[in-house]
Amino acid sequence: MSDTQTNQTWGGRFTESTDAFVAAFTASVEFDRRMYRQDIEGSMAHARMLARVGVLSREDCEAIVRGLEEIRAEIERGEFEWSLALEDVHMNIEARLIERIGDAGKRLHTGRSRNDQVATDIRLYLRDAIDAIQTELRRLLGGLAELATRETDTIMPGFTHLQVAQPVTFGHHLLAWFEMLKRDYERLVDCRKRVNVMPLGAAALAGTSYPLDRHYTAQLLDFAAPCANSLDAVSDRDFAIELTAAAAILMTHLSRMAEELVLWSSAQFDFIDLPDRFCTGSSIMPQKKNPDVPELVRGKVGRVNGHLIALLTLMKSQPLAYNKDNQEDKEPLFDTVDTVLGCLRAFADMVPALRPKRDNMRRAARQGFATATDLADYLVRKGVPFRDAHEVVGKAVRLGVETNRDLADMTLAELQRFSPLVEDDVFAVLSLEGSVAARDVLGGTAPNRVREAAAQARTWLAELA
Amino acid sequence: MSDTQTNQTWGGRFTESTDAFVAAFTASVEFDRRMYRQDIEGSMAHARMLARVGVLSREDCEAIVRGLEEIRAEIERGEFEWSLALEDVHMNIEARLIERIGDAGKRLHTGRSRNDQVATDIRLYLRDAIDAIQTELRRLLGGLAELATRETDTIMPGFTHLQVAQPVTFGHHLLAWFEMLKRDYERLVDCRKRVNVMPLGAAALAGTSYPLDRHYTAQLLDFAAPCANSLDAVSDRDFAIELTAAAAILMTHLSRMAEELVLWSSAQFDFIDLPDRFCTGSSIMPQKKNPDVPELVRGKVGRVNGHLIALLTLMKSQPLAYNKDNQEDKEPLFDTVDTVLGCLRAFADMVPALRPKRDNMRRAARQGFATATDLADYLVRKGVPFRDAHEVVGKAVRLGVETNRDLADMTLAELQRFSPLVEDDVFAVLSLEGSVAARDVLGGTAPNRVREAAAQARTWLAELA
Amino acid sequence: MSDTQTNQTWGGRFTESTDAFVAAFTASVEFDRRMYRQDIEGSMAHARMLARVGVLSREDCEAIVRGLEEIRAEIERGEFEWSLALEDVHMNIEARLIERIGDAGKRLHTGRSRNDQVATDIRLYLRDAIDAIQTELRRLLGGLAELATRETDTIMPGFTHLQVAQPVTFGHHLLAWFEMLKRDYERLVDCRKRVNVMPLGAAALAGTSYPLDRHYTAQLLDFAAPCANSLDAVSDRDFAIELTAAAAILMTHLSRMAEELVLWSSAQFDFIDLPDRFCTGSSIMPQKKNPDVPELVRGKVGRVNGHLIALLTLMKSQPLAYNKDNQEDKEPLFDTVDTVLGCLRAFADMVPALRPKRDNMRRAARQGFATATDLADYLVRKGVPFRDAHEVVGKAVRLGVETNRDLADMTLAELQRFSPLVEDDVFAVLSLEGSVAARDVLGGTAPNRVREAAAQARTWLAELA
Amino acid sequence: MSDTQTNQTWGGRFTESTDAFVAAFTASVEFDRRMYRQDIEGSMAHARMLARVGVLSREDCEAIVRGLEEIRAEIERGEFEWSLALEDVHMNIEARLIERIGDAGKRLHTGRSRNDQVATDIRLYLRDAIDAIQTELRRLLGGLAELATRETDTIMPGFTHLQVAQPVTFGHHLLAWFEMLKRDYERLVDCRKRVNVMPLGAAALAGTSYPLDRHYTAQLLDFAAPCANSLDAVSDRDFAIELTAAAAILMTHLSRMAEELVLWSSAQFDFIDLPDRFCTGSSIMPQKKNPDVPELVRGKVGRVNGHLIALLTLMKSQPLAYNKDNQEDKEPLFDTVDTVLGCLRAFADMVPALRPKRDNMRRAARQGFATATDLADYLVRKGVPFRDAHEVVGKAVRLGVETNRDLADMTLAELQRFSPLVEDDVFAVLSLEGSVAARDVLGGTAPNRVREAAAQARTWLAELA
Repeated sequence: MSDTQTNQTWGGRFTESTDAFVAAFTASVEFDRRMYRQDIEGSMAHARMLARVGVLSREDCEAIVRGLEEIRAEIERGEFEWSLALEDVHMNIEARLIERIGDAGKRLHTGRSRNDQVATDIRLYLRDAIDAIQTELRRLLGGLAELATRETDTIMPGFTHLQVAQPVTFGHHLLAWFEMLKRDYERLVDCRKRVNVMPLGAAALAGTSYPLDRHYTAQLLDFAAPCANSLDAVSDRDFAIELTAAAAILMTHLSRMAEELVLWSSAQFDFIDLPDRFCTGSSIMPQKKNPDVPELVRGKVGRVNGHLIALLTLMKSQPLAYNKDNQEDKEPLFDTVDTVLGCLRAFADMVPALRPKRDNMRRAARQGFATATDLADYLVRKGVPFRDAHEVVGKAVRLGVETNRDLADMTLAELQRFSPLVEDDVFAVLSLEGSVAARDVLGGTAPNRVREAAAQARTWLAELA
Repeated sequence: MSDTQTNQTWGGRFTESTDAFVAAFTASVEFDRRMYRQDIEGSMAHARMLARVGVLSREDCEAIVRGLEEIRAEIERGEFEWSLALEDVHMNIEARLIERIGDAGKRLHTGRSRNDQVATDIRLYLRDAIDAIQTELRRLLGGLAELATRETDTIMPGFTHLQVAQPVTFGHHLLAWFEMLKRDYERLVDCRKRVNVMPLGAAALAGTSYPLDRHYTAQLLDFAAPCANSLDAVSDRDFAIELTAAAAILMTHLSRMAEELVLWSSAQFDFIDLPDRFCTGSSIMPQKKNPDVPELVRGKVGRVNGHLIALLTLMKSQPLAYNKDNQEDKEPLFDTVDTVLGCLRAFADMVPALRPKRDNMRRAARQGFATATDLADYLVRKGVPFRDAHEVVGKAVRLGVETNRDLADMTLAELQRFSPLVEDDVFAVLSLEGSVAARDVLGGTAPNRVREAAAQARTWLAELA
Repeated sequence: MSDTQTNQTWGGRFTESTDAFVAAFTASVEFDRRMYRQDIEGSMAHARMLARVGVLSREDCEAIVRGLEEIRAEIERGEFEWSLALEDVHMNIEARLIERIGDAGKRLHTGRSRNDQVATDIRLYLRDAIDAIQTELRRLLGGLAELATRETDTIMPGFTHLQVAQPVTFGHHLLAWFEMLKRDYERLVDCRKRVNVMPLGAAALAGTSYPLDRHYTAQLLDFAAPCANSLDAVSDRDFAIELTAAAAILMTHLSRMAEELVLWSSAQFDFIDLPDRFCTGSSIMPQKKNPDVPELVRGKVGRVNGHLIALLTLMKSQPLAYNKDNQEDKEPLFDTVDTVLGCLRAFADMVPALRPKRDNMRRAARQGFATATDLADYLVRKGVPFRDAHEVVGKAVRLGVETNRDLADMTLAELQRFSPLVEDDVFAVLSLEGSVAARDVLGGTAPNRVREAAAQARTWLAELA
Repeated sequence: MSDTQTNQTWGGRFTESTDAFVAAFTASVEFDRRMYRQDIEGSMAHARMLARVGVLSREDCEAIVRGLEEIRAEIERGEFEWSLALEDVHMNIEARLIERIGDAGKRLHTGRSRNDQVATDIRLYLRDAIDAIQTELRRLLGGLAELATRETDTIMPGFTHLQVAQPVTFGHHLLAWFEMLKRDYERLVDCRKRVNVMPLGAAALAGTSYPLDRHYTAQLLDFAAPCANSLDAVSDRDFAIELTAAAAILMTHLSRMAEELVLWSSAQFDFIDLPDRFCTGSSIMPQKKNPDVPELVRGKVGRVNGHLIALLTLMKSQPLAYNKDNQEDKEPLFDTVDTVLGCLRAFADMVPALRPKRDNMRRAARQGFATATDLADYLVRKGVPFRDAHEVVGKAVRLGVETNRDLADMTLAELQRFSPLVEDDVFAVLSLEGSVAARDVLGGTAPNRVREAAAQARTWLAELA
């Protein structure tokens, strides 16, 4: 009997040794060994439960737990020899366990299958990943809330269609980002509920004939509950798709922030200064200071959208229960987690270091007739129906375009040509400070509202901890 | 001044009339008029709030509300003339309102913008859509729970890798579907929380200078709260992506059910009979009875995955706040909602009418050595370590393959050749009934467990109502 | 027997009438009737071929052709009554034909099936669509070549990382767009080869027992050849995916052009003026002139990416031969074609009307040390290794940043502090004209190279026609 | 000056050392070092061209070429120390070159930039990849043509809607696969034309001031031509998207073949036997023999679809010219190439080893009234219009369903009850051999046609070589 056959735990039925290329092609150990901690944790809990219900002796259980601890240490010291012939992380660890502790090791797999084992490992892994992502996200949210608090009164142009629309405060803009990411945080909270359910005990697909105490195992592993249906437990990956979808939305948000950071770093906008350590230079143009980190984050939304499609395609029209296709779930998930963590860390480091160029922002807000809406609102308060006021102001703007002047730069007489209702108090309305202060409505850009919103943001964050 | 200009409410600044093709290319009324009810509902609430805070007179408010009611009736009678030149549902309705009630109509748009108006309409629309989807989903879940209750004891093969693995009960399989769809239901509940927040009051992007009472408007429209940041309120569509992602997962689940229904309807499986009304025939082959409804549902997962990518691509790297790109959010959303509703309705109608062919299922469960695991478990209970038992049974199966017999068809002597521990009681273990009954663990396929699970499913559904 | 059954051509085998909802759910006539011309064209060719090989009498053939011509006229006059109960465009037309000409109409479907019929219709439709797309694309390419010819000497900043990098000419930039779209054109040429192959004669899946002359039918329909395998002919849709992929790349190119047009229209860049008719205004901000057409085109890349995924998902793991899933191929395809045609038309109309603001472009090119690379190259020509020259210039730029001056604004003495090799001739090198003229390499931005490239572009276009 | 700064070739302008995390986050050397051979090949050609046009001395050129050869050898011996601080493959190799040969090494980067360098490397890499993919594809096509030749007369059921439709030959089915993959081959040929164009000489974005001979470099690197526009050359990645799209279609085809192999391996179909080495077993169910290779290939279509979306998302709305986002192009491309190569190799190995179970195929073809169309065609030949014949046969099939008999099992008298035109010769028509032989049309399933098609397939392949 060849080595390969000895190593492969399902070799009994087969008459032909596995072709080497096929072995490498179908093995997953190169990427799933990343879950070794979760796999060992799950096996320990399974063994303890088996002992509790009497399927395993106390001694065997202790030997298994001790053996697994030693294997974990071996792995973490970099001394474990991973074998492709043993296919996956599960078989690698189990084979080593048997090597170390003998027959007791052969009893560990009682009442479980790789199908429920791998589903459990992934859920444990993703639960840890969500926790780590939330930690970084809180850090980024904290940075935004701080910076917004500091920039409550900083005036910048608000854009729609990338045209100057109305003046806003920089703090208000930063809190828009806060709100986007806050919802991402809440989506992760909701997703975690569906991740945190335990497949172990489903065995291959139908449950098992051993009297498992699944509630006990779930408790040991800190799962909220065992999965309610064994076929479902081993075959579905919807929780993984949901997490990837939440990650894709989060990355989309980061791509929007990144786009603005790139725009604002351009010579044309020149609204902010990114610290050098988040930029790189050019191999040919000595003057370049490129906003590499935002650009790269913007680009990385692509891979997460791609992983989402990979997982959705993977699961499309798969009959129950487990199919080998599902081995393909891991790499997109792992890369999604790595990408999100890396991007969040980079942004959480960068946001507190952003240096706004307040004068440039303010100057830009004066371009493009940003207070035209204020003039229309002024006329409405004087009794003009909004639609008529809108048309009057349109004509004033046309004069401004032709004579290259802002509305605030026109004389009272000129403005009165468009409407006799205009009086001297109009100039307060047409100022940047007057404009932002006037938007004193819940959610509006008036500095007092922004201050309030920033305080609420900080409170919400504090209560999370 | 041309007609086009008169019609276009933003014509004042422009010196050149809009080209007809461009007008058609950029107009959205062909598809967004579907939201007329939500648009009118939102406008009524806005008017009532304006009146309450004193920006609008009581009389104007009443005229507006009455005018909008009449317009709604016109639309529903099919008498409303939609105009492409008026671009969108908002302008069409407002122009008609002004036509009907004069100056009061021109005052409706005070303190709002199309940016917050359209964001509000979409959220109202999606909230209704989620409610409708949940209703159909409950109906389908109810059908599954009923059928599962009826088929608690029906034995069929459980498959992994589309190979017969272990016997399961048909009721157990149906409840796996139930669990999948139940999570989809819960995802919709979570998503609805993030949909049900009100943009109105954000105006173009910065809030407004009128003293709006946004809490009052929210209350009138049954929103949980107003959006907390005006820039965010008009620019983000993450709630729409989230809903589409939930829909894509739901459709993926339906595609998996569909795949199984197609397989089971084939001559090779022949596990079920689909009622004729869910099938169609062939224009050339008179004998065909094709499972069209499941096939079509399976195919429709493609369009929802596509819409998800459309929305993610749309939002990638858009700077704040509103950009015209966002007009592209509606068609994917509308088609997602229509698709999900149609597929759920078709499946909810079909499931109670499925006719299982119990004899065929049972016969198939006897193929493929489905009780081999039971033999391994039997040996474990006699003290053999699981890994050794697995190898022993592998050899017995090899004999079965060579002599074309199931394990249950071997003699005791033959079985004892593989392990002397085998005794006469092995044949109970190798029977289909013995096998399923043995999987008497939480979530397992034993009929008593399935009965329990079906009861819990019905209870959960009853409590939703 | 109910009406529904009489109408449904495959009703013979069924004992239960089709449920109305299911009929609507599974019918395709609402969208596939758009292919009526192709369907009729295909049927005429099929009838003529059947007559030629003697399966159909001359008289029947003539009656069929005449009947189909009349039906086409009915449809085009808007007088044809489309029936949902008749499912699709094929059955609607055939039923009407039988109604008009009796038994001869019943003979048309001899030796074909809806499976090969619909596959033929789609290919005819897409062939027409490719031709129409290529026509619009040539128009856009022509506009770019003209504008580039006019703007050969216009200097603007070239960007990398949205930072000013080196000066380029506007004509050079426009020709970059030309190259992108030229490859899209060539991709369509390649795709058309694979579209232009004829399924007719494959019948349901296996070919037919009638002595069809498939080459003759292909010749009548102007197909390059009949499909070589009947199973493949009715089941694959790879040509449709390929076309959608080519469209997605084309739309990606348009989204990049659109992004730049939006940027250049902003007050911060202010490089171009878009004619009013490609812009729209705001319902609340009277001063706004929004670049709606580019924004909308940018957004529309989303739907085409989505359709690509819809089709790929649709075909994933479908067993041969035809499955009902494939009915889902049409809507994504139709919308892809409409979207691409609309966007190309809008851009082809808009490009010749773009008004570059040459002074602003030139001014911007002086920002950001755009000629720093020229200084490095100057030093290399004096014998400094490139890497050392790069470092020297980096230090000069640092001084420029600190003192807010361009390199060209420094004195000779200052520059010599960084390298004694700098002499008086350096200032020619640091000028914008000097910089672009120096890039006199094939594909470079030197005006004479751009002029040459524009001429080649016009020649290539002329030779297409 | 810190080490980091010394190492980073663009350090001159910067005052702050790069943060370690950011350095790792933005570095690409972990994945782009895979292109070391292409990078070195490109650098050698660039140096030789610089020497030819007199920008580089002969001695420097020789030192560079020799240095690069030694570095390549170092890398291949595993002795090269890759440094994260040096960011990418280009800087790592250049820094080592300077270390080895001094100032001559600093002259290599004259007249080029990393922007055109990396674009050239990718194209060289993908050109090699396409060649490798085509080699494996030819091997798979060869296997299919051989097997089809052997199975020309093997009768199996042809399916539509996974219902038995008409008998076909197994060879015919295999040749459908052949046609699908043949088009994939041709798509790669077309794509290669657009890959095989050289960016070198575009420098950062605008060309260079050195008198490069781009045609000479192109010739040395075996490129068909230099890119015609420098901005386009460094910024676009459409060729990469096109290749990924071609790969996604190819993988979709493999997923369809895989689905059928999985179905055919099931106990229910049992049409083929997959050699053990392409299967694996179960860790819990000793009897399982799972078709792992086809399942895994089916699953892998997901990742390639995902990579396609990753690249499309990446490029959406990127302004010209190069942006850091583009660094994200490599990992999806590399994994696409690896995946396609692995799957093709696995299938090319597996196809010749497939063992058809001809008796089972034949038995299945007798199920489901597979020759019903033949009866309808028989009646048409007796003068019945096709639509009427179709209805008559439908009734006969209904009797068959009710009495559980095939049409061939009815008596002449029974058949005559449905149509008096039926005569004794009908039974030849209703036989499987009669049915397939009758489909004697170009592309049809008749054995002589299949034999012809298989011969053409082999000829086409032979001519490729």
